[in-house]
Amino acid sequence: MNGAESLLASLAAGGVEVCFMNPGTTEIHLVEALDRVPGLRGVGCLFEGVASGAADGYARMTGKPACTLFHLGPGLSNALANLHNACRARVPVVNIVGDHATFHLPFDPPLASDIEGIARPFSKWLRSSGTAGAVGRDGMEALAAAQAAPGRITTLVVPSDVAWGEGAGIATPLPVPRAPLPSQSLIEEAAQLLRNGARTGIVLGSHTTQGSALTAAGRIAAVTGAKLLAPFAFARMERGACRPPVERIPYITEQALAQLAEFRQLILVGASEPVAFFGHPTKPSRLAPDGCKIFTLTAPEEDGAGALALLADALDAENTNPLLQRAEAVEAPRGAITLDGIAKAVASVLPEGAIVVDESITSGRGMMAATRAAPPHDYLVNTGGSIGLGTPLAIGAAIAAPDRPVLCLEGDGSFMYTLQALWTAARENLAITTIVFANRIYGILKSELAALGTNPGPRAVESLDIAPPVIDFVVLSESLGVPAIRVTTLEDFASAMRRGMESRKPNLVEVAL
Amino acid sequence: MNGAESLLASLAAGGVEVCFMNPGTTEIHLVEALDRVPGLRGVGCLFEGVASGAADGYARMTGKPACTLFHLGPGLSNALANLHNACRARVPVVNIVGDHATFHLPFDPPLASDIEGIARPFSKWLRSSGTAGAVGRDGMEALAAAQAAPGRITTLVVPSDVAWGEGAGIATPLPVPRAPLPSQSLIEEAAQLLRNGARTGIVLGSHTTQGSALTAAGRIAAVTGAKLLAPFAFARMERGACRPPVERIPYITEQALAQLAEFRQLILVGASEPVAFFGHPTKPSRLAPDGCKIFTLTAPEEDGAGALALLADALDAENTNPLLQRAEAVEAPRGAITLDGIAKAVASVLPEGAIVVDESITSGRGMMAATRAAPPHDYLVNTGGSIGLGTPLAIGAAIAAPDRPVLCLEGDGSFMYTLQALWTAARENLAITTIVFANRIYGILKSELAALGTNPGPRAVESLDIAPPVIDFVVLSESLGVPAIRVTTLEDFASAMRRGMESRKPNLVEVAL
Repeated sequence: MNGAESLLASLAAGGVEVCFMNPGTTEIHLVEALDRVPGLRGVGCLFEGVASGAADGYARMTGKPACTLFHLGPGLSNALANLHNACRARVPVVNIVGDHATFHLPFDPPLASDIEGIARPFSKWLRSSGTAGAVGRDGMEALAAAQAAPGRITTLVVPSDVAWGEGAGIATPLPVPRAPLPSQSLIEEAAQLLRNGARTGIVLGSHTTQGSALTAAGRIAAVTGAKLLAPFAFARMERGACRPPVERIPYITEQALAQLAEFRQLILVGASEPVAFFGHPTKPSRLAPDGCKIFTLTAPEEDGAGALALLADALDAENTNPLLQRAEAVEAPRGAITLDGIAKAVASVLPEGAIVVDESITSGRGMMAATRAAPPHDYLVNTGGSIGLGTPLAIGAAIAAPDRPVLCLEGDGSFMYTLQALWTAARENLAITTIVFANRIYGILKSELAALGTNPGPRAVESLDIAPPVIDFVVLSESLGVPAIRVTTLEDFASAMRRGMESRKPNLVEVAL
Repeated sequence: MNGAESLLASLAAGGVEVCFMNPGTTEIHLVEALDRVPGLRGVGCLFEGVASGAADGYARMTGKPACTLFHLGPGLSNALANLHNACRARVPVVNIVGDHATFHLPFDPPLASDIEGIARPFSKWLRSSGTAGAVGRDGMEALAAAQAAPGRITTLVVPSDVAWGEGAGIATPLPVPRAPLPSQSLIEEAAQLLRNGARTGIVLGSHTTQGSALTAAGRIAAVTGAKLLAPFAFARMERGACRPPVERIPYITEQALAQLAEFRQLILVGASEPVAFFGHPTKPSRLAPDGCKIFTLTAPEEDGAGALALLADALDAENTNPLLQRAEAVEAPRGAITLDGIAKAVASVLPEGAIVVDESITSGRGMMAATRAAPPHDYLVNTGGSIGLGTPLAIGAAIAAPDRPVLCLEGDGSFMYTLQALWTAARENLAITTIVFANRIYGILKSELAALGTNPGPRAVESLDIAPPVIDFVVLSESLGVPAIRVTTLEDFASAMRRGMESRKPNLVEVAL
């Protein structure tokens, strides 16, 4: 067993099931080892940003790390933007980056680069493996470090002679430290705040908008009247009918200020104090009203689900029915395309169990409100603000949950960043319906430019257009193996989305705006 | 004049004419300033890797830096892979990266990242601008640092409050230090080597395969019989009929060893000792034969052109006619597509003054040999081995030299990395003919896998395929606004290439392999 096989077999023994990859020559022994590690599924991507975003989506849906396989510093570089988003999603990912053979590196060949320097800004754990005998163990350490709560990006650099050298077999899985609970006195303090009569919001960060954490939060809301909130950039929210309703803090600063104005107390569970997405010359950075008490129940690295359960206990809410969203059927709208109409149409069609990936930026502003009472579904958004995450996230989610249909809502500007993901969707025959909102502009920038109040000149305005040329997203999608359709009415949109999601195959709908 | 305008107007005053950009909200004041700096042309790109690769191509053709405009750490991250290639090409580029307002950054909003950490591995000069009053001067320093021989990547981080604050007008351009010449004794030593009768190769790196440097090298070759060589990864070569012939050192280690076997002396001009592209378990890293004397005439930072002129003087060759390639007409081949036939067809059609960008990897192995005696043209290749450079490089070359047709030779795997470049080609109506060699595999990896001699399994072999799905490059190109055609015979290829290059518009030819 060479180092490559020792590493991959060790990761598989540690529970890693998927490797999102775009390998190169320095990784060829790792590619070759794939056939000898049957528990590890290799998923090919034509661009590394697809692989890193897919690993994020996979982790959001499973709570488990996938590994990735990248080609030296430049391959890793292409993955970084979506690793930034994955860092902000606080998910586990184990990156494997091939490097030149150790004896070759001193000659500074063309592909040599400072891989550790490139990895460092987005890696919480980082190592260059020194020997083939140690690389399996290194992989296990990377895996354990990635799984430390709430989830971390780790990067293991594997020189090619470490991959081809004689390995030491399958390493022993390492224990993952449990996330600590807050002290009982902190729980009591939170309970007292929730009983003091002041209007309170509970901001649910770091994977507490799902599972038992969300249920506990719903119980707390039911007995205290506190409102459940989520940061604008959250990783995954279980929502819809029969789920505790959680309000997302809006992107638009004025809207966020208005939403939070009522609160005298904010309890943070694995979240930071709400702040604006960008700083602005005249708008505040902090979104909570003056005098609002900010109380941190748990840091992101602590056990938010456990803390919420203890808090529910402290409030005698452990047997209360959680506050739940009532189901509301939404009538399918008809007529000309409007953003409001599209959001309603999505709500009218969305099947139970769907996974929604929303990177529709300006076009999707009303989407979460419209779908709040749709059948239960998961909602994933861009956590780090680096666009080009949506289609990769959908890949990862679809591979993580093959029995669930994925709806990927994409702005055209975002879509063009990582459109190579369509090819992987076709190759793996994934149940992803991608909706492209073709408004032909970087709409968010257009609004920012207008907000300057400076009467911007034509070159500035044009520089934010995504046309001309007018991209034909239908033809583009089909060229990559994904059937597509363009719709110009709401009824056509709804039926295209329904057919697409029922097909359980990759498909794309261009919404002409 | 705000900081944004002060910065851009200063760069324009310093000679910067083009800004390749994919901006975001933190750069919105820089976008807005474009209209007030008429000397600076903004070229929009749908992905940052297109912008950084285009800046490389522009610099290779003009010797001058373009600037780029990127959105925080993630936008810069997307640019890194082609900045790696630009580092290896030793070209000047001035990156401008917008950051959060300084007062907003402490709140750690979603897009906050360690921009300096991300920039450092690929930046020879790096600064975060502290005030609007200083940012113009910072830009001038970045520009001067970029222009220091032979050309460097510099990165200036501009917080948005620095962009919108009151600037200090147009800064004074700073002097660029001249590249030093080697000592006269080193020139004499080189001249003695060239006279000692031992078989000698002169390896021309760092921009010495063009202009006066190449002419001087041709004179030296004429009087000494030395052979002119270029590293496999060179930035730009002026070649073809009536140009001094320079032999590229091959990628394949065995071929490189065979090529260099005859030499007893290698004189390096801005180049490193020839080494293999990758290390290998049983093949050598160093390519020169045992006992071959390696003599460094100039380091990359020194004046290679000046050194070659002095060396020609020392050899009394300053008035000699340089060794020149004889023109040879190549008959257009006919019949079924072969790689050899395609290379001949390119040679038969290539117009005088063409700029060839070659990222055809395995499919283009015979291209340089076939075109060695074609009408004079420039040849640009991938310098850092990070694929996805070709189409962006073509963008930059076409903008740098609008009167010259660009031929961009692309492997399908490489093409898929930065296909967004087609959109910019269409938007700017650039005279680029892109040839996609559609062999549907990462051919270079397939051969590496086969070379392991381990009888690789089906999953490994399949993981290197780029089909299924079969990408339709014609449809893909047209969806992005670039007319395209698929050819299945050599005569159709030649006529499609001729028509494409004569059209002086963007177009694409898919070569079905």
